[in-house]
Amino acid sequence: MKKISHTSPSKIVLLIIDGVGGLPHPEIGQTELESAEKPNLDQVAKESICGLIDLISPGITPGSAPGHLAIFGYDPVKYSIGRGIIEALGIDLELKPRDIAARGNFCTIDNKGIITDRRAGRITTEKNAQLCRLLNEKIAINGVEILVTQVKEHRCVLILRGEGLSPELTDSDPQQVGLAPKKIEALLPQAQRTAEIANEFISQARRLLRSARNDIPSANMVLMRGFSHLPDIPSMAEIYKLKPAAIAIYPMYRGLAKLIGMQILPAGNNITDQLESLHRYYKDYDFFFIHFKTTDSRGEDGDFEAKVQAIEEVDNALPNLLNLNPDVLIITGDHSTPASLAMHSWHPVPFMLRSKWCFPDRVSEFSERACLEGGLGRFPAVEIMPLAMANALKLDKFGA
Amino acid sequence: MKKISHTSPSKIVLLIIDGVGGLPHPEIGQTELESAEKPNLDQVAKESICGLIDLISPGITPGSAPGHLAIFGYDPVKYSIGRGIIEALGIDLELKPRDIAARGNFCTIDNKGIITDRRAGRITTEKNAQLCRLLNEKIAINGVEILVTQVKEHRCVLILRGEGLSPELTDSDPQQVGLAPKKIEALLPQAQRTAEIANEFISQARRLLRSARNDIPSANMVLMRGFSHLPDIPSMAEIYKLKPAAIAIYPMYRGLAKLIGMQILPAGNNITDQLESLHRYYKDYDFFFIHFKTTDSRGEDGDFEAKVQAIEEVDNALPNLLNLNPDVLIITGDHSTPASLAMHSWHPVPFMLRSKWCFPDRVSEFSERACLEGGLGRFPAVEIMPLAMANALKLDKFGA
Repeated sequence: MKKISHTSPSKIVLLIIDGVGGLPHPEIGQTELESAEKPNLDQVAKESICGLIDLISPGITPGSAPGHLAIFGYDPVKYSIGRGIIEALGIDLELKPRDIAARGNFCTIDNKGIITDRRAGRITTEKNAQLCRLLNEKIAINGVEILVTQVKEHRCVLILRGEGLSPELTDSDPQQVGLAPKKIEALLPQAQRTAEIANEFISQARRLLRSARNDIPSANMVLMRGFSHLPDIPSMAEIYKLKPAAIAIYPMYRGLAKLIGMQILPAGNNITDQLESLHRYYKDYDFFFIHFKTTDSRGEDGDFEAKVQAIEEVDNALPNLLNLNPDVLIITGDHSTPASLAMHSWHPVPFMLRSKWCFPDRVSEFSERACLEGGLGRFPAVEIMPLAMANALKLDKFGA
Repeated sequence: MKKISHTSPSKIVLLIIDGVGGLPHPEIGQTELESAEKPNLDQVAKESICGLIDLISPGITPGSAPGHLAIFGYDPVKYSIGRGIIEALGIDLELKPRDIAARGNFCTIDNKGIITDRRAGRITTEKNAQLCRLLNEKIAINGVEILVTQVKEHRCVLILRGEGLSPELTDSDPQQVGLAPKKIEALLPQAQRTAEIANEFISQARRLLRSARNDIPSANMVLMRGFSHLPDIPSMAEIYKLKPAAIAIYPMYRGLAKLIGMQILPAGNNITDQLESLHRYYKDYDFFFIHFKTTDSRGEDGDFEAKVQAIEEVDNALPNLLNLNPDVLIITGDHSTPASLAMHSWHPVPFMLRSKWCFPDRVSEFSERACLEGGLGRFPAVEIMPLAMANALKLDKFGA
């Protein structure tokens, strides 16, 4: 791809409707997409070549990070991004290249050291902040900087910053109640010192959380998992010679976009703001990633009707994207989130690509069943970027 | 494949209609194949299993060489064939295994050494021949044989023949005007001597082209690119235990076929002659590759009507192939060349395979949209040869 891609003035716009794929409602027999009033999305489908994408591979439910990476053309198995890094990106933490990040849970252990509540009674974010301040102030370990930051409710992120650290560590979190937290072990010899540092952090944290300094008795321990550092990943500029930009409201998606070299543009508070931003910066970049989250959130709530409304919200806003008439417009999702399952799922996701050269198929509706009949068939998401680049006439011929 | 293939009397005929795939005409909404009157091709489609092939991978536009290699079952990324070799094959040059070939352009440079015309004003092939004679007569470099051969207009091929040469060299051609030709560099230490020879060739050529011996002042320099040698590639006899033959009019396709061990048969001047040759040699081989070029040429001209006529020309000739009733008949293309794009494109190519054992689908027309509904779906071209061999009953069971 590096060898055959070239820069040109054509514009690619990629709209990710997070978790857009769904399942038929048990009573009405239609999916969220099939139920929604979405004349604009359906019109784009008529002018597009359509298909269904598998983000990772059939049967595999993608997390948000690998789902997006696959769409951006990165093998999501090769470029796996650790839980700790995802959590740090999700709260807009500035990471240095060799920082080790881990996800933490404040939890409750009994006097035998057995975990009785993995979420410390779902303490409030405010109480969480108070705990993080305590740990940041009091924990000191030689030769390493310690940074604990609150996330929502019982969750936090730990950053270890220093020389010669390795993320090759096991978790302390056994991921179930009724067990004691595990000792962190080095998975490679060079991670031995980092394992000692991590265990020392937990030991000091435990002492502080059980002391009189902590007035939240349910949070008397912290569980750590997903030690990781920033992956070594080539930028989109390097691979595709693009000048890419992201318009995303949620920090995790901005963080992920930044990781592969996208410029982060202002996104405002909703899809209307995002498309205003697209207009404002349209001339300055040649690739735009726009991320819409609500479909996934309502799907995870198990709220079919609210997910239908979120789809309609995108559809209502769409004319202000279509009036730019990008050379290549792609609309898809990073995974399915059927309201009936109330979680991410493995089902392939509707996909459409519109360009002057796309060879439209007979699909006239943006939905799971309609896209199954599409000209692209069912295909792996990592093939999206080559298709986008080809339709933007940004690829040279391969071989003579 | 080597382990399970065996020789048998059954015959496989592979007809490549170069660049046959197209895009809908902007006014009539039909592709070149959809517009053509082609009762014989459509009849074969009815009796075949059909599909759409991706030559390299989705979105990637194949050159003719990798497109054909994929159809012959060779991974086109693994077996890449350099520009110089392609050019040499294209003019029927006899190459020795360790020859280094490079593509040359006679060009114009100004008195500061800056390229002002990469094609030397598109000099005639006759003037080109005169330049090549001059270089062949006058250039001498110790320990290496130099052979310059004219191609069409401003193009030539340079062969370096000798011991210990390496093709791991950069180009001197910067591929744009306004720059000076680049010095050729060795990409590997063992190519150092070859780099010196190549630079010495250019230096002597430059002197000769600027001297009074050259009466074509626009051609005062030569640009070199694509240094390469014959790839180390197993023959079709080795892999498939076939005795294969090629009936191709254009030298590049004959050269490519020879490279993988096909016998080159007389091809005459048109598809009618080619099918006569097929009859004549039918008993002597068990695999025939027939190459039809005009569809690609007219597509590259951007001439929709002429490409339709070229398809009809194949269709008219087809009865003289069908009357041989080969055990396996495959008809497809090595890439799409939509007249609307006037170049090779990435769009998948209609494919059909007819045999007693093919399990025909419901496709009744040989076209892009019809083949999308075919029993083979969309699939990689490297799978064609296993399918051909299976349908010819030339493959053993894999495993017990």
